[in-house]
Amino acid sequence: MVESIRQTASRISQLKIQGARNVAITAIEALVKLSELTKSKNKKEFLEDLCRGQKILFSSRETEPLMRNAIKWIISEIEKTDEEKVKVLSKIVTASANEFLKNLEDSKTKIAKIGSKRIKNNSVVLTHCHSSTVTKLLATANREGKKFEVFCTETRPLFQGRITAKKLIKEGIKTTLIVDSAVRSIIKEIDLVIVGSDAITSEGNVINKIGTSTIALIAREARKPFYVVSELLKFDPDTICGDYEKIEERDPSEIWKDGPKNLLFRNPAFDITRRDFVHGVICEEGIIPPHSIFEVVSRKYKWIFQ
Amino acid sequence: MVESIRQTASRISQLKIQGARNVAITAIEALVKLSELTKSKNKKEFLEDLCRGQKILFSSRETEPLMRNAIKWIISEIEKTDEEKVKVLSKIVTASANEFLKNLEDSKTKIAKIGSKRIKNNSVVLTHCHSSTVTKLLATANREGKKFEVFCTETRPLFQGRITAKKLIKEGIKTTLIVDSAVRSIIKEIDLVIVGSDAITSEGNVINKIGTSTIALIAREARKPFYVVSELLKFDPDTICGDYEKIEERDPSEIWKDGPKNLLFRNPAFDITRRDFVHGVICEEGIIPPHSIFEVVSRKYKWIFQ
Amino acid sequence: MVESIRQTASRISQLKIQGARNVAITAIEALVKLSELTKSKNKKEFLEDLCRGQKILFSSRETEPLMRNAIKWIISEIEKTDEEKVKVLSKIVTASANEFLKNLEDSKTKIAKIGSKRIKNNSVVLTHCHSSTVTKLLATANREGKKFEVFCTETRPLFQGRITAKKLIKEGIKTTLIVDSAVRSIIKEIDLVIVGSDAITSEGNVINKIGTSTIALIAREARKPFYVVSELLKFDPDTICGDYEKIEERDPSEIWKDGPKNLLFRNPAFDITRRDFVHGVICEEGIIPPHSIFEVVSRKYKWIFQ
Amino acid sequence: MVESIRQTASRISQLKIQGARNVAITAIEALVKLSELTKSKNKKEFLEDLCRGQKILFSSRETEPLMRNAIKWIISEIEKTDEEKVKVLSKIVTASANEFLKNLEDSKTKIAKIGSKRIKNNSVVLTHCHSSTVTKLLATANREGKKFEVFCTETRPLFQGRITAKKLIKEGIKTTLIVDSAVRSIIKEIDLVIVGSDAITSEGNVINKIGTSTIALIAREARKPFYVVSELLKFDPDTICGDYEKIEERDPSEIWKDGPKNLLFRNPAFDITRRDFVHGVICEEGIIPPHSIFEVVSRKYKWIFQ
Amino acid sequence: MVESIRQTASRISQLKIQGARNVAITAIEALVKLSELTKSKNKKEFLEDLCRGQKILFSSRETEPLMRNAIKWIISEIEKTDEEKVKVLSKIVTASANEFLKNLEDSKTKIAKIGSKRIKNNSVVLTHCHSSTVTKLLATANREGKKFEVFCTETRPLFQGRITAKKLIKEGIKTTLIVDSAVRSIIKEIDLVIVGSDAITSEGNVINKIGTSTIALIAREARKPFYVVSELLKFDPDTICGDYEKIEERDPSEIWKDGPKNLLFRNPAFDITRRDFVHGVICEEGIIPPHSIFEVVSRKYKWIFQ
Amino acid sequence: MVESIRQTASRISQLKIQGARNVAITAIEALVKLSELTKSKNKKEFLEDLCRGQKILFSSRETEPLMRNAIKWIISEIEKTDEEKVKVLSKIVTASANEFLKNLEDSKTKIAKIGSKRIKNNSVVLTHCHSSTVTKLLATANREGKKFEVFCTETRPLFQGRITAKKLIKEGIKTTLIVDSAVRSIIKEIDLVIVGSDAITSEGNVINKIGTSTIALIAREARKPFYVVSELLKFDPDTICGDYEKIEERDPSEIWKDGPKNLLFRNPAFDITRRDFVHGVICEEGIIPPHSIFEVVSRKYKWIFQ
Repeated sequence: MVESIRQTASRISQLKIQGARNVAITAIEALVKLSELTKSKNKKEFLEDLCRGQKILFSSRETEPLMRNAIKWIISEIEKTDEEKVKVLSKIVTASANEFLKNLEDSKTKIAKIGSKRIKNNSVVLTHCHSSTVTKLLATANREGKKFEVFCTETRPLFQGRITAKKLIKEGIKTTLIVDSAVRSIIKEIDLVIVGSDAITSEGNVINKIGTSTIALIAREARKPFYVVSELLKFDPDTICGDYEKIEERDPSEIWKDGPKNLLFRNPAFDITRRDFVHGVICEEGIIPPHSIFEVVSRKYKWIFQ
Repeated sequence: MVESIRQTASRISQLKIQGARNVAITAIEALVKLSELTKSKNKKEFLEDLCRGQKILFSSRETEPLMRNAIKWIISEIEKTDEEKVKVLSKIVTASANEFLKNLEDSKTKIAKIGSKRIKNNSVVLTHCHSSTVTKLLATANREGKKFEVFCTETRPLFQGRITAKKLIKEGIKTTLIVDSAVRSIIKEIDLVIVGSDAITSEGNVINKIGTSTIALIAREARKPFYVVSELLKFDPDTICGDYEKIEERDPSEIWKDGPKNLLFRNPAFDITRRDFVHGVICEEGIIPPHSIFEVVSRKYKWIFQ
Repeated sequence: MVESIRQTASRISQLKIQGARNVAITAIEALVKLSELTKSKNKKEFLEDLCRGQKILFSSRETEPLMRNAIKWIISEIEKTDEEKVKVLSKIVTASANEFLKNLEDSKTKIAKIGSKRIKNNSVVLTHCHSSTVTKLLATANREGKKFEVFCTETRPLFQGRITAKKLIKEGIKTTLIVDSAVRSIIKEIDLVIVGSDAITSEGNVINKIGTSTIALIAREARKPFYVVSELLKFDPDTICGDYEKIEERDPSEIWKDGPKNLLFRNPAFDITRRDFVHGVICEEGIIPPHSIFEVVSRKYKWIFQ
Repeated sequence: MVESIRQTASRISQLKIQGARNVAITAIEALVKLSELTKSKNKKEFLEDLCRGQKILFSSRETEPLMRNAIKWIISEIEKTDEEKVKVLSKIVTASANEFLKNLEDSKTKIAKIGSKRIKNNSVVLTHCHSSTVTKLLATANREGKKFEVFCTETRPLFQGRITAKKLIKEGIKTTLIVDSAVRSIIKEIDLVIVGSDAITSEGNVINKIGTSTIALIAREARKPFYVVSELLKFDPDTICGDYEKIEERDPSEIWKDGPKNLLFRNPAFDITRRDFVHGVICEEGIIPPHSIFEVVSRKYKWIFQ
Repeated sequence: MVESIRQTASRISQLKIQGARNVAITAIEALVKLSELTKSKNKKEFLEDLCRGQKILFSSRETEPLMRNAIKWIISEIEKTDEEKVKVLSKIVTASANEFLKNLEDSKTKIAKIGSKRIKNNSVVLTHCHSSTVTKLLATANREGKKFEVFCTETRPLFQGRITAKKLIKEGIKTTLIVDSAVRSIIKEIDLVIVGSDAITSEGNVINKIGTSTIALIAREARKPFYVVSELLKFDPDTICGDYEKIEERDPSEIWKDGPKNLLFRNPAFDITRRDFVHGVICEEGIIPPHSIFEVVSRKYKWIFQ
Repeated sequence: MVESIRQTASRISQLKIQGARNVAITAIEALVKLSELTKSKNKKEFLEDLCRGQKILFSSRETEPLMRNAIKWIISEIEKTDEEKVKVLSKIVTASANEFLKNLEDSKTKIAKIGSKRIKNNSVVLTHCHSSTVTKLLATANREGKKFEVFCTETRPLFQGRITAKKLIKEGIKTTLIVDSAVRSIIKEIDLVIVGSDAITSEGNVINKIGTSTIALIAREARKPFYVVSELLKFDPDTICGDYEKIEERDPSEIWKDGPKNLLFRNPAFDITRRDFVHGVICEEGIIPPHSIFEVVSRKYKWIFQ
């Protein structure tokens, strides 16, 4: 029973599942399965099993606040209930999981709708890497009949910008691809930068794909608005307690498959964009300054800090 | 006779010859050959032939100040002389060409020696793209027994950073490769940035490989010294007359060989780093502020403005 | 009945009524009148009438958050009540309207009192355009016996700075008038900048008379405190949902009455001062960073988001 | 009875007691003693006595928000109770005082624990002046086995940096002392700046020992994180109402004991670091942006604004 | 004889003649006339007369480097000559005056030609106040067939921007007029700022119409190129010796003809734009950084420092 | 004979002689003495002796460009002459030495006169450490009848600011002393910063007493002019060849005489102020941008580069 959760954790840690959202969904499914297979006989044992599962899932990757918040919330729902029957508890897990996933989907739709209002007619948007929420936001604006075009960076080393480019072309949006280094050369043609987010800290800083903070710096120098699209549940509650957001270091072969032997590599997957570079975080609550994100999360998702 | 120079020009314009220095050398050789083959009978005809050659070479690529200055100088040597015999004139061309090339080589050695003094023991240097002068500078410092390490960007789209990395490893210098987007993440470990240059304008701005100006911006934000290595003859005298330095736009296939049909590309080869980002230009005259480069060139190479 | 509200709306849209506060008061009065004349027979019909009135008033001018919030609040008071009798409902409208107006007046007094503490003896204050709250704040400080002087910009194109200057002279405050372009020349003599506000967005940005953001930029460059005086109800709840604050474009004749035929004009009435330029918003809750204004409004005026 | 509180106030105003924390503790003790000696016969008289004591203590020094908040809280506890017996009320004062002091101590421990997570292995920390909370934070990190070193400024005119240096050496932490003017020269070796705080304003600004804001400026220029360690109760509720934080001017003899007669001196004890320079305030609630401190205090310590 | 020069000086000081260029031309003419009417009998007396004239002209307005440099140059030509006959000396004055004026006109044409190269097709230029050289530059670009448009500020208090607008319309250039305060709102549509100059200091700073330095600040914030058009002879040699460039304070009635009695005014005619805001000075030598202007003038016009 | 020069060198290296100017004077005197005592028999031997003396003096302290330039100049005068008699050569040395010292004194007077023009009536000047040229400049302004006051930093660790304060009081100038850390608190009252210089580099950077660059940073933040007073001969010609200006590290006891054993110290004597912080260098040539100092020195003191 725990075995299955261990397999999921292992697939996550081996990067077979990628993207904050996909990792969260997979972990939730594993927890639901665990709750169905558990042999516990009462709430106490049931909870112990869940917590064991939680521990395994949490150790699968260093920084995945969305996944952690999801698991935490489901378990908090069990803790709250007076129910003792394991069957019922299991159903509560399933229901909570579904509710969480539905809310996540609703947030995405809401964010896309809110954010699409920022796209003006005849404007030029720049984005970096691939974020399904950003893509949805742009598609929403396009379907509303707005005329605009998009610049994508290719996003080395894994070229996720090509995925974004393909999806935007499919939507019929005029799209231009550039190398990451060319952003400062084309920034004066840009009206608006929109990027996704992997995690947000209590200081209001944004962790996202390597290169994001450089684009933020360039945007600020040229006085261009820089927006981050993020579900509030990407807030990392550990940062409030002083923990640093860990920055994953990936395999050198992503950069150069058959590079010379003595050559060293540094391959950080993410970087940190400080709050002062971010005009607004577009979240399910609306568009807010990153400085107040801790307060907004405190108000809306109190359980996150338990 | 002019045919041969046309072939050279064509090879230059098709990018079969690359790098400011190589283009200059090739063009000089073509001019020497022209002076040997010319059927002119006096200085006047001889000069007309040279000028025809010059015109063809100049039109081969938009921005190559070093090549242009080289050709201009050789022709100015002929203009100055009272000699009328074509044979002798041809020898003057060859001698001038050799002198120019020797000076160019001497400048490189001098720059490497001056610049190597900026490398302190136990320091970390960042460079971008591939510049043979920067590589020579680093090799010089290494041979002098200094201990230091180097970070290279891979330099998309053509990965010239890999060439730099290979050469530095060969010299036994500890070298780390990163993607272009990772510069801001590692800048706090860097003590000094050194890059090459393709052209310098009368305002003191530096034209160099795409991505250079972003690194300059990041270096300034983190209060790290940013040096440009350049022979003074990369100064573009046309810029004093108001001409913009042209920025070559290269083929999209450099970015994505088999990208989707409807996808647009922008692929500028160079960008402009404004003088305020440059701590010093390391040239054959020493280390100078870019603000006074027009004055230094005026003092040392008056003929450049004729 | 609806006719009368249409007349009011028309007067507002023709700029016969000006200033956020005056527009709000006029709209409130129109709504009260509507509630007295309505022929509705129950709460449902009564509300429908009010909403029709609201729609007309809202369409009278693009951006008037104070007016919109006022109307919204009065209607929310009706929605909350269990009362069904139209007569009583009408009285609730009147009472709510009066309460709103009283609170608005109280806020102004409170802001003037709080803000006047920022005026130190022997200091020099700069203000822009005309804001009755800023004038009241300065008058309050003057009546408390503080010695200080004020610089006013003339505020092109409509010279509202002259109104401010006249009122301050009447109060016996030493006042100097300058052209808008002279702010940067006199900023080093200034200790404090205080301006009013037309609207505040969810990002914490301030919409105010054209020229305000330039003064903010100049103040920041010279490290001078820049305060914005604003009732919290100038917060625009639509901005939280992604809407841009619209910037009204006024008639060219304001700039040049009999200018040449082919000459084009641009005459934006307002500009946007980003939160990072604002030391504090002086509101009825005290002096707060603009970054947290969305949270303060959420805490104090929840109904605004309904 | 009031005499004893007057003596305490006098010792505070003569600077015989120093440090926000020590002043608060002494004032609390004086209030407890007053509550024990009072001859009042009922709650009303008891409260009047307390308020007299409060008035005397408040006038002892201009800016001591921690002391003021402590006294205010104890009195608010009496106001809340329905108890009328003076004996019991006195016990409530003692109990409240103890609770306050315990909370203060707990906050310190919590802050040290949270903040110590920001100290990475092999990092270099800079601090200014002497703050017992910062020292505790560093000691905590050291005891957890982290390897790091600390730079202290000497902190003229009273050399409090020497106290910090001595305490850190005692803890076995590698420590280097520099003159205040040398910060900009060594900043590139620093990974993190941590300082204490005397008061925090509603705008999110930090009042701390003279020199703090200069270090903040230098840290920002060099892109180094700057953290402020502070209990939330150092928030000054008067600032929300427009009051300026007063900056104490101390005796010239602190600067030069036997300076020439005609020489003037300026000796401000504190300076103001604006919120934009502060990465985070490390408080008992976690690490937060200074921009939201008013909201956090509003949420956690509502009584502070009464 | 001296009378006639006094009349000219008086017309200059009463602002009946305006613009650096017109003042210079008028003063030159007066000096020529003086040299024709002089009753001096030898070079010594002739020079004394000229110097008397110079003194009167110099005292007519505080800051007019172009006029001062013109007079100085003519006199230096007399000093250099060995001629003693007054008749001939007078002819030398006339010849020198004509040469100076011709050079001035040539410089203008050269500047217009050089500067016009900075205007790209489909670009948008912003200018401030009225400068005949800027207008000529724009007209030159227009006649060369370039498509571009221009934004003019109205330039309070004297509305010189309207003159510019009229002239540009006459040339068939698409022109838009804005109030001075609207520059920051439209700056993102601007590609290039070009303004004139009244004087340049040894530090490389530019004195020009009030409002210029604000536009420079806005341009820098938005990363837009800012060019100054100036003949090198607007360099003020007194500034090298420490003199400040004086800023003329004009009559209040320019701002408000019938303003209230007690109202004070400040009406500086010019402001100072520091060299760091200026991308390049477009002068007869080409486009140069303002930092090296003292060196360029030293090289080209040595007599200016005598 | 060489012995005497060794003694001088030893006194210099033991810091018994301090200040760029005093070190230069002492070294010149030692060279003169050497030239008088030399037993050389011809120019060749005489020069060899001088060069031996030069070598010893140069090794006495790392960075003393003024001393080095002085010695270099005297020797270059010998090299130039055709004279062979040792007696005469010795006299040339003495004459050159006197000429150098006279020029140095003249430069100081000229600088004081030029710089004093920057002091406006009723202005407030800030200075740091002790520079005899700055003191002379202020005294000159005072004797010209200008009313102004001066703020001095105490300048830890050696309190040289107290020397400045004493001298200014003696001159009858209103003077206020502050701790180094208080500069940012009083900067808004300052109109002008003037400091001395120990050396200037080819990049235009200024080496001066520790703390100078922090004041420059604070001045720039507050938009206050920052001037450096320096003879051109403080230019260090080695820096043009890439050498770093060495920063002397002094004895810890200067900071804390009897500090604890395990405490480490860092005591750099100087810091580097980058050219971008300096409004102008006030030198004997006038007030110039630091960016062009290499060019000005090249023009005026060519021999410095030999």
